[in-house]
Amino acid sequence: MPVGDEWILEGLDGIPPRLAETAQSLALIDHHVHGCYVEKIDRGAFEESFNEASTDPIPAFMTQFDSQPGFAFRRWCAPLLGLERHAPADEYWAARSALTPAELDRRLLPLAGVEHWVMDTGFSLRPITDPAAMAAESGGATSEIVRLEVVAEGLLATGVAPADFAEAFRAAIAEAAVEAKGFKTIVAYRVGFDIDWEPPTDAAVAAAVARWAALGQERPRLSDPVLEAFVVHAAVALGLPLQVHVGFGDRDLDLHRTNPMLLLPLLRRAEVQRTPIMLLHCYPYHRESAYLAQGFDNVYFDIGLGVNYLGAQSRQLIAEALELAPFAKQLYSSDAFGLPELHLVGSILWRRGMAAALGRWVREGEWSEHDACRVLEMIGAENARRVYGL
Amino acid sequence: MPVGDEWILEGLDGIPPRLAETAQSLALIDHHVHGCYVEKIDRGAFEESFNEASTDPIPAFMTQFDSQPGFAFRRWCAPLLGLERHAPADEYWAARSALTPAELDRRLLPLAGVEHWVMDTGFSLRPITDPAAMAAESGGATSEIVRLEVVAEGLLATGVAPADFAEAFRAAIAEAAVEAKGFKTIVAYRVGFDIDWEPPTDAAVAAAVARWAALGQERPRLSDPVLEAFVVHAAVALGLPLQVHVGFGDRDLDLHRTNPMLLLPLLRRAEVQRTPIMLLHCYPYHRESAYLAQGFDNVYFDIGLGVNYLGAQSRQLIAEALELAPFAKQLYSSDAFGLPELHLVGSILWRRGMAAALGRWVREGEWSEHDACRVLEMIGAENARRVYGL
Amino acid sequence: MPVGDEWILEGLDGIPPRLAETAQSLALIDHHVHGCYVEKIDRGAFEESFNEASTDPIPAFMTQFDSQPGFAFRRWCAPLLGLERHAPADEYWAARSALTPAELDRRLLPLAGVEHWVMDTGFSLRPITDPAAMAAESGGATSEIVRLEVVAEGLLATGVAPADFAEAFRAAIAEAAVEAKGFKTIVAYRVGFDIDWEPPTDAAVAAAVARWAALGQERPRLSDPVLEAFVVHAAVALGLPLQVHVGFGDRDLDLHRTNPMLLLPLLRRAEVQRTPIMLLHCYPYHRESAYLAQGFDNVYFDIGLGVNYLGAQSRQLIAEALELAPFAKQLYSSDAFGLPELHLVGSILWRRGMAAALGRWVREGEWSEHDACRVLEMIGAENARRVYGL
Repeated sequence: MPVGDEWILEGLDGIPPRLAETAQSLALIDHHVHGCYVEKIDRGAFEESFNEASTDPIPAFMTQFDSQPGFAFRRWCAPLLGLERHAPADEYWAARSALTPAELDRRLLPLAGVEHWVMDTGFSLRPITDPAAMAAESGGATSEIVRLEVVAEGLLATGVAPADFAEAFRAAIAEAAVEAKGFKTIVAYRVGFDIDWEPPTDAAVAAAVARWAALGQERPRLSDPVLEAFVVHAAVALGLPLQVHVGFGDRDLDLHRTNPMLLLPLLRRAEVQRTPIMLLHCYPYHRESAYLAQGFDNVYFDIGLGVNYLGAQSRQLIAEALELAPFAKQLYSSDAFGLPELHLVGSILWRRGMAAALGRWVREGEWSEHDACRVLEMIGAENARRVYGL
Repeated sequence: MPVGDEWILEGLDGIPPRLAETAQSLALIDHHVHGCYVEKIDRGAFEESFNEASTDPIPAFMTQFDSQPGFAFRRWCAPLLGLERHAPADEYWAARSALTPAELDRRLLPLAGVEHWVMDTGFSLRPITDPAAMAAESGGATSEIVRLEVVAEGLLATGVAPADFAEAFRAAIAEAAVEAKGFKTIVAYRVGFDIDWEPPTDAAVAAAVARWAALGQERPRLSDPVLEAFVVHAAVALGLPLQVHVGFGDRDLDLHRTNPMLLLPLLRRAEVQRTPIMLLHCYPYHRESAYLAQGFDNVYFDIGLGVNYLGAQSRQLIAEALELAPFAKQLYSSDAFGLPELHLVGSILWRRGMAAALGRWVREGEWSEHDACRVLEMIGAENARRVYGL
Repeated sequence: MPVGDEWILEGLDGIPPRLAETAQSLALIDHHVHGCYVEKIDRGAFEESFNEASTDPIPAFMTQFDSQPGFAFRRWCAPLLGLERHAPADEYWAARSALTPAELDRRLLPLAGVEHWVMDTGFSLRPITDPAAMAAESGGATSEIVRLEVVAEGLLATGVAPADFAEAFRAAIAEAAVEAKGFKTIVAYRVGFDIDWEPPTDAAVAAAVARWAALGQERPRLSDPVLEAFVVHAAVALGLPLQVHVGFGDRDLDLHRTNPMLLLPLLRRAEVQRTPIMLLHCYPYHRESAYLAQGFDNVYFDIGLGVNYLGAQSRQLIAEALELAPFAKQLYSSDAFGLPELHLVGSILWRRGMAAALGRWVREGEWSEHDACRVLEMIGAENARRVYGL
């Protein structure tokens, strides 16, 4: 069991002491994260939640435990369940299953050291904790991000007339903006980035909504480039930060059509340059995302999902994220979803990866220790605090 | 001269002992490899065989010895030829030339520690060893992979009527499947991946074959997108693993059209998901390939060619290949062709790179040594044994 | 203050002595570089010159000092201004401002250890030093590269008849070729690489020039694919090395359309293969560029701009540049522009990064120290000397 925070950097040699202290104890803002499952899940659902790859059952010849996140869970979470570190998968599963989801959350979440969770409360197949529950279980504050596609899909389900859709959507997100700290779009999943980014007219929106309604989907699913451009521009007009999923996700996504460079026609528009654009995840396009964060004053990025998925190898990714972009333009996130292991391990791996990269630069004299601590604080919390007004 | 296998990790510090032992002595399955030249070659042909880049003569201002593979040959093979390690290129060439090809094979191949070579016996400009000779010279077992384009080209050369081509091709590969362990396609070289992946009708195949035959090529060369889609679907229907060349090769290849993400329309088809798809080489798209291996239960990948070509710098590539994909989805290969140096050095570099990456993770406590050894065995042999039924 | 060159590798452990000596003292050829500002600049202009990202003012919430190049300037240049290393940004700015531009140049430039600057003397918003001044201030020799777009734009401004443009352009660059060591194109910025690379006829050129002239631009700006293909082919015909900007630059550039693989239709032309093609910068496409340098005898590449922009993290980039390409095909450059800090820090970071990567390979026995020193000399100077005939 951990005592204080010293366990987080265990095994890393030569981290200068003040940097180590900052990396271990810094209160993070996780600027893109989801809730935890509120009901017990079976082992299949558990392993499928290690990543977003697919909703197929895990094939009989393998287990997702044999992956970087699986090894990271067994390393970092097993001791918190009363097991040896690296406990075998079956033991891990048995110990985890013996706890209720809420017990598990309360055991793991506080150790992430997150003072504020900025939560995407959009759609989930299984019930997940809402911001109030997350706050109670973790000890951190919470804020909400509103997913644009969810608002549009809910609106269509109300049977709004196509001609009224644009106005009703604008009203709905304006109301949401009173409480929310930002918006999010998953245009990457739905149509890719290589669409016409000219703001559509209300008439074009009405026509697209009419086509969509005519599909008679039981569960409306927005996947129309006109409507994606519309919801993005409607959100941008409100000035709250807009989170944009970039790069990998599930296999329905055409990864090569989520290269963030394809957002250039959107980013070059003057009215868009007045709203913070937050590029999420970005792997394997994190270098391209950092280039955009360097080139546009209003563009930011994170490497959220990648850190958890890459486990021990996330160290290189974390270093690669420290290339082009000024340090005021990167944020921390875990993009954890469902499993509190992800909320915790995302934080541990990021702290370790930053300590290792920055520690080497300090040790070799390239950076001062003071600067290294400042950069940790900027990316870990300060940039999010400023951009979201927390 | 090496004594036991301890020389393989020489110069690497801090590898935990059991991991070192496994990395040195693990019997590999090289799941994609070619034979060795059976005739003596001149120095020009030797240097041109360091990579696939071009068949031009090496320009007078340079030597391919001054490259990562050149340095790796001089480091690892010179002592096996009775020279000092890093012996000068001229000395290396002189010592190598003093041996017959078979002597050279028998000296280098057994040291690769490969228990099974899965050989692509397709086309070569120069005579190369067949599986029986490889087995005799290396001490390892051998199996064959049948190259689809070679079968199709041979069939056209027989003068089969275009209307009979589809059926004749299916019969030919069904017969080949009795002995072969899998198929391979070089669609990447011939037309790229951005083609229509809908299975063509037999009528469309007949029309394409008629066009092809009308070209009157002395040496038939399949380079038609309809026929490439046809041969791939015909092979997939047989259920044997299908190897797909991905990423770099020679300069005739449009590298950006071999991004494996362009295979998504093929991979998303239900009937394709019943056959193992083996993405070969993949550099510089190994991160994209690992993403596909994570997303599709039937997709696997390797970084074969890259390890040899990157030499001392392959260590980073080997670590990058341990990012997204579950460890059950990656395989070892050398893709060695012609020079037994490639068969050997591919093995040494991979053993060293894995020992270095996994060794650090074990040392820093992120992985257990037991897991590290298991992953070495999975990627080095076990996954290939399972997928190919060896 | 530095004594000798030993300070350059300070903080790096375990560099073998002869390699360290070579890395510290090797006289470089910087084969792609610009002059320094000749007039005093204000702090905004200074920070905007850290990179090419944008010409917007730096936003109030940040400073470009908080970036990899900012940290590198404070580390490496502050002691040369009489400050502690890592001196705060305000102190750095105060000390820098106390010197005239020429004083600053004379203090920093000689320490770069560059014996020959191959200068792109093309367009600049602010006056910059010409080759004579650079030579005087740095102690190195200088040569010139002629930017094709500047020549074409100057020609249009003379009011040449469209029908005479092609001939006049050929005459102008033939005259320039008497003194210049090569040409450069920024086709990446202007139209991207995905254009028709067939050499246009003089009639097609005349028509394109007529359209261009009709725009009545106050300051003519070439941005027509026909004319870009024309100027490139005209330059190639003269046989002097042609520098091609590849990869990142400012935000007007469609980064994904500067993937060097899109140059394949140009590079495959026989007449182009007789002229050295120098791919500049290349990040984040340096692996693709190295692949082209491996595949084509006349293709070379550098990672100039990236080294400065990545600061302490440039070490990984420098190692990645040592993958596919034979060592005779890579060159050193800083691409420094305006700030002598960039001329100096580019050199220091490259020396350190090479010493670190090669030093590890020597230490671990993969490379001989002799080879490591040879590769430093090849990339640092010898390749440029041969290609440009210096």
